[in-house]
Amino acid sequence: MFETKRVKMYKITVVGSGNWGSVAAKLIASNTIKLDSFHDEVRMWVFEEKLPSGEKLTDVINKTNENVKYLPGIKLGKNVIADPDLENAVKDANMLVFVTPHQFMDGICKRLAGKIRADTEGISLIKGMEVTKEGPSMISTLVKKQLGINCSVLMGANIANEIAMEQFSEATVGYSQNKLAAERWVHLFNTPYFNVTAVQDVEGVELCGTLKNVVGIAAGFVDGLEMGNNTKAAIMRIGLKEMIAFSQMLFPSVKDSTYFESCGVADLITTCIGGRNRKIAEAFARNGGKRSFDELEAEMLQGQKLQGVLTAHEVHEVLSHRGLLHMFPLFSAVHAISTGQLPPSAIVKINNEKPRQVQLQSML
Amino acid sequence: MFETKRVKMYKITVVGSGNWGSVAAKLIASNTIKLDSFHDEVRMWVFEEKLPSGEKLTDVINKTNENVKYLPGIKLGKNVIADPDLENAVKDANMLVFVTPHQFMDGICKRLAGKIRADTEGISLIKGMEVTKEGPSMISTLVKKQLGINCSVLMGANIANEIAMEQFSEATVGYSQNKLAAERWVHLFNTPYFNVTAVQDVEGVELCGTLKNVVGIAAGFVDGLEMGNNTKAAIMRIGLKEMIAFSQMLFPSVKDSTYFESCGVADLITTCIGGRNRKIAEAFARNGGKRSFDELEAEMLQGQKLQGVLTAHEVHEVLSHRGLLHMFPLFSAVHAISTGQLPPSAIVKINNEKPRQVQLQSML
Repeated sequence: MFETKRVKMYKITVVGSGNWGSVAAKLIASNTIKLDSFHDEVRMWVFEEKLPSGEKLTDVINKTNENVKYLPGIKLGKNVIADPDLENAVKDANMLVFVTPHQFMDGICKRLAGKIRADTEGISLIKGMEVTKEGPSMISTLVKKQLGINCSVLMGANIANEIAMEQFSEATVGYSQNKLAAERWVHLFNTPYFNVTAVQDVEGVELCGTLKNVVGIAAGFVDGLEMGNNTKAAIMRIGLKEMIAFSQMLFPSVKDSTYFESCGVADLITTCIGGRNRKIAEAFARNGGKRSFDELEAEMLQGQKLQGVLTAHEVHEVLSHRGLLHMFPLFSAVHAISTGQLPPSAIVKINNEKPRQVQLQSML
Repeated sequence: MFETKRVKMYKITVVGSGNWGSVAAKLIASNTIKLDSFHDEVRMWVFEEKLPSGEKLTDVINKTNENVKYLPGIKLGKNVIADPDLENAVKDANMLVFVTPHQFMDGICKRLAGKIRADTEGISLIKGMEVTKEGPSMISTLVKKQLGINCSVLMGANIANEIAMEQFSEATVGYSQNKLAAERWVHLFNTPYFNVTAVQDVEGVELCGTLKNVVGIAAGFVDGLEMGNNTKAAIMRIGLKEMIAFSQMLFPSVKDSTYFESCGVADLITTCIGGRNRKIAEAFARNGGKRSFDELEAEMLQGQKLQGVLTAHEVHEVLSHRGLLHMFPLFSAVHAISTGQLPPSAIVKINNEKPRQVQLQSML
């Protein structure tokens, strides 16, 4: 296969350079210098910023091999080259790694359309796609449509700083058709401390990264109510089942087995034990729902918006539109509680009706 | 169905009266007084003890409706009758709930053989069956063989004291053939705060309750090493996959979907967040493996033996016997670490080889 040809066929650009983007560049760069099929150099597009010192962020990264702003203290590898010019950064690449805040992706795709190599493969590490009434607007689909290239996704229980410190972790690559490309992504990301597995289920993997935040909110309510581990485990399990049922409603091809991968059960556990959706929801329940999510977010997250509350709202819209709220009691309760229609204690009084697999077709 | 006949057809005896047995009696008693198909009275066999006051435990339970020794402060229901005479306790019953320490079951079955009604259905709530080289000695199989009756199991994320306080929880009934009997068990146990689901997979459900303890040990090592949530979630996920693969190796009929039930992922989460296997393993890792499990158990559990370490040893015997250790890197590492052959840090250096489904047949 490609690894044995000893020809540097693949050239990588990481589009994005935040906390997770920098860790991704580090992981990739540690492999490209070892594996023969990849060019050593990893180009990283950096949205240029002026640092307090007056220096440009790209200059400092290229001088110190460190993203001093978003991943201080971690060497990225000498073969990571920061580039502030998006078009220039991608022009020679045939493997593009997208890892920006999701609201920037539409603009980035518009700028890149027609300017990338025809043989390019993409992968999105972006969690938090939007779900609209008409269905989810997946980042992988956006890339496919706007750039005309194949796009996989990589998701998992991935707290960037823990991976930067080389603590053992896992991730899942979701792909649609091109198994060889998926294996190439696995080779590019996999390290002894970062174990990557590929599954043919791009929609399932990408939806995990979004829906888990709704369950994280539910878990936070349980913590705020000071319920025990039994209750929390039950709520997480019901949430997992609703994630599967919701994904399969939107995409009947989504596989149950995807939820046994890192993107599924592992990311859910991380989110429900330590995530910030959980944390704010805990504070919300401790205050008996008397202080709004907006208020708590402003105070505890310095104005950042919680993904889980937005997603719960979007999921609610889809379910309400299709008359299926009763089949997703946990998702419905999270929305009702976070909007003040029900008290936090309603999370443990959800109807025991089980979500069933429903075909999108039969609902229209 | 039986509920609409308005005939009290079913009479229940709970064999066992420890912490979990008392909670089970409470759950059941709250339903038998409401549901027409069950006799109100729930008989509970109590291994007679003399209390410090000089009174007999059964007398106090029958006087106060409280198991003052094993579930103090909780009313069991006036319709729970404690009976110190095993044969007498079961003689009119046709639904037997087994909830004793597992080492007592062989003796209990021997005493009961030939003394129970022919139409009796059994259910085991006993976690911690043994796994021998020849395969697991399942409690449900023991009951079937020795008493000649059908036996289901009930497992789940069930910390007895939390359920006693009526905190929301779930459980799974595993059955082999008799779906109607399984539905009857669901009716008998299910309450608004204790949601019970039946699945046709008695082996899968019963094995969950044992194998989870091995993963709980692994999770404790991660905690003791002060790794982050990513790592812990990854270890839990790998453990879940090995639980599935090991169960399917022993019983090819075991279903993946069983692990999405309370007995699977939810009980695993509870065990890995709060359980005592986790706790002792954490202490073991904090001491760098320099103090043995025996020593830590003696100090922290007043001499009780940890189920997880025993099970890890039993699982190791099975895998070693079959030459399959390499396919279960986490189970193998837990055994090697707990016996001092590897340092605790080995838990996060496990080989990434994935456990695959193997057929028992192909291994013999």
